[in-house]
Amino acid sequence: MTLGIIFGSKSFEHEISIVSAITMKKVLKNTLEYIFIDQHRDFYHIPASKINSKLFSSGEYKKYDKLQISQGGFFKSSLFGQKKLDIDTILNLTHGGDGEDGVLASLFEFFNIPFIGPRNTACVVSCDKYITKQYASSINVKTLPCEYFHKDDKVSVEKYPVIIKPTKLGSSIGVSIVKSADELDYALDVAFEYDDTIIIEPFINGVKEYNLAGAKIGNNEIQFSIIEEPQKEEFLDFEKKYMDFNRTQQVLKANISDELISQLKDNFIKVYNNTFDGSLIRCDFFVIDDEVYLNEINPIPGSMANYLFDDFNTLINQISKYLPKQKDIKIDYTYVNQIQSAKGK
Amino acid sequence: MTLGIIFGSKSFEHEISIVSAITMKKVLKNTLEYIFIDQHRDFYHIPASKINSKLFSSGEYKKYDKLQISQGGFFKSSLFGQKKLDIDTILNLTHGGDGEDGVLASLFEFFNIPFIGPRNTACVVSCDKYITKQYASSINVKTLPCEYFHKDDKVSVEKYPVIIKPTKLGSSIGVSIVKSADELDYALDVAFEYDDTIIIEPFINGVKEYNLAGAKIGNNEIQFSIIEEPQKEEFLDFEKKYMDFNRTQQVLKANISDELISQLKDNFIKVYNNTFDGSLIRCDFFVIDDEVYLNEINPIPGSMANYLFDDFNTLINQISKYLPKQKDIKIDYTYVNQIQSAKGK
Repeated sequence: MTLGIIFGSKSFEHEISIVSAITMKKVLKNTLEYIFIDQHRDFYHIPASKINSKLFSSGEYKKYDKLQISQGGFFKSSLFGQKKLDIDTILNLTHGGDGEDGVLASLFEFFNIPFIGPRNTACVVSCDKYITKQYASSINVKTLPCEYFHKDDKVSVEKYPVIIKPTKLGSSIGVSIVKSADELDYALDVAFEYDDTIIIEPFINGVKEYNLAGAKIGNNEIQFSIIEEPQKEEFLDFEKKYMDFNRTQQVLKANISDELISQLKDNFIKVYNNTFDGSLIRCDFFVIDDEVYLNEINPIPGSMANYLFDDFNTLINQISKYLPKQKDIKIDYTYVNQIQSAKGK
Repeated sequence: MTLGIIFGSKSFEHEISIVSAITMKKVLKNTLEYIFIDQHRDFYHIPASKINSKLFSSGEYKKYDKLQISQGGFFKSSLFGQKKLDIDTILNLTHGGDGEDGVLASLFEFFNIPFIGPRNTACVVSCDKYITKQYASSINVKTLPCEYFHKDDKVSVEKYPVIIKPTKLGSSIGVSIVKSADELDYALDVAFEYDDTIIIEPFINGVKEYNLAGAKIGNNEIQFSIIEEPQKEEFLDFEKKYMDFNRTQQVLKANISDELISQLKDNFIKVYNNTFDGSLIRCDFFVIDDEVYLNEINPIPGSMANYLFDDFNTLINQISKYLPKQKDIKIDYTYVNQIQSAKGK
């Protein structure tokens, strides 16, 4: 299977996406075709052998061929017309904007290009932290209570400490812990820099946090990762997460009871089915007084959380066999013909 | 202003969209450029003077120029390269799939094409009837209670009559009223024909129904339509709505109290702000015991509900001046450069 790795794009997580894409070269055995989306949202076909982070920061990527998206795939223009890039399935590695908000999912659907990654509804459900809570409530998964504010609203906080998050965006961008009223204004400025709406949750110091990734690899069969207890100081900010990312991952497999493992998996399954079909996601959970709470859903986790799986390469190939199919829609112009015959009377 | 009318596409409401598009020629004074998306999702540029329903049902549209979507707009290929179609703003008239589920909104966002119509989140919130209820609850707008079922679930109904609706889709497609247990299986078959999930609501015979359309035409300024009390036998099925659509609309302005008018408008504003910025939507409300309930949100109402407005042409021009802007995202490769300098150490 030839896998197309799509990454970059107009996103606050453009650079993380580049690092994720480079990681794939080390962990996947498939033939890889790299499609870089630059900040102007032009597509470039980068040879796998040339992939390194400097290529993008220097602007050198521009010397490679531009691609055009069109029905059925990506195309290169030449004197002799359009030539289709030979790809079986796309792996969507575009974190944040475009990749995780449904824009690219919509493009792939419209142009009928098979892809591994969250579908449009899955994106909207996971990239908007407020809609995530509504979704969780509808599937009987607990989340922390929150207040929701628009940038024009008067924000008031009853009890500190709280954590302030832009409603959209991942990777802790724009997120602050606020311990007292005099820290509030600055934290609001930071959060509203990235989004017009925010949520405010209670901040629970030292809360137990567990990450579990997984993907559907057959009818109702989910392949789970190990459960990770992420290392943290208070919480990992963007920069720390990012720099960590490029090091060899030392994963701490959480030392927890079988009972808790099974609770976490049950919650994962409720979140996944069937909204996240076709994607490999990581759910980040809190555990408070033995109860599991969903913190967030990462529908395209950094470097696809490959380090949490024993055999990541086989997993990706399995997912590609169970991608959701588009509904067949028959258009036969019955009604238009009725109108015409009605007019003829 | 030159308006591009985009319509058709791979959708159960493909034909309604054609009728809406034809209607625009009668009600808009702008220069119109018609872009038809056929069922294979190829774009065609149809001269406004040639627009009629038979052009599409006969397949004759294929003799007109194909278009390619690319950064900044739609392009025509010729021997001398690509020529951009001269359009100021797109009016998204694609009902149902692609148009109202966020696919086209995502395309326009990705390719940086200004458009009148619901943005991606607005689409997901309105096209999924179950998410609509969650959204409504978050903004303190009432909806009827419902049960939610997947096609693999065992469906049970406690009290008849109920109304069964596919979770997605509009225009009453796949919707049935079920009066007793022996009608249930057939109604479920019909609904699951169109969607993998359904909702079941109590059916209230003779419930008062009111439609209100509107759009943002300035900072926090919404232009409302008249309030319509739709004519109905039990409820309008797809065919009836569709045939009605092509007749001259006899609109019944609802004869209701100022108090109720203001309640309906208040509910509309809660629904609209700010999720539906950039679009003209119609909210369909129920009134039960003097309480307003949101039934559904039509983010691209049939023929844009033009018949509910005094001066539809001016309205469309006003909306186009207040389209939401994309966030500016600066990509400066700070982190990638840090990694490179860390490696150099």
